[in-house]
Amino acid sequence: MKYAAKIEVGLKPGHSNPEGETTARSLVELGFSVEAVDVSKVYTIILEAASAKEAKAKAEEMSKRLLANPTKDNYTISVVEQK
Amino acid sequence: MKYAAKIEVGLKPGHSNPEGETTARSLVELGFSVEAVDVSKVYTIILEAASAKEAKAKAEEMSKRLLANPTKDNYTISVVEQK
Repeated sequence: MKYAAKIEVGLKPGHSNPEGETTARSLVELGFSVEAVDVSKVYTIILEAASAKEAKAKAEEMSKRLLANPTKDNYTISVVEQK
Repeated sequence: MKYAAKIEVGLKPGHSNPEGETTARSLVELGFSVEAVDVSKVYTIILEAASAKEAKAKAEEMSKRLLANPTKDNYTISVVEQK
């Protein structure tokens, strides 16, 4: 079956977040009042797997081997079956 | 009240997606079989607003004025109240 695995990769707390800070500053310059901005990245991966559990395990391995940096990134994975 | 507005910005269908293609190629080189990879960005913005509706309207305006490029990007917004 075909699955879409959505992997959201963001910075662990305490790591500096220059993109979020720049975005917050730009929003303030435009007149918005914002307290903080975090930026993360979402990889939506279409893959074949026998079950949702297997798709999630594959996505977990992709995160560890390529998509997330274990030193500075957190990630969350959700899997949905594709029609 | 304080809200977290989560704005996910991704490419409209039909736009070339070099980052996704490169990621897909790297995953294949690592031995994963993947069909496609899409990459999008999530801005989590902490802001003050009188209601969830107002927070969403502000996030909508931020997307239009700064975060999304109307020519090539789609975006979705979700809002949750912060404790």
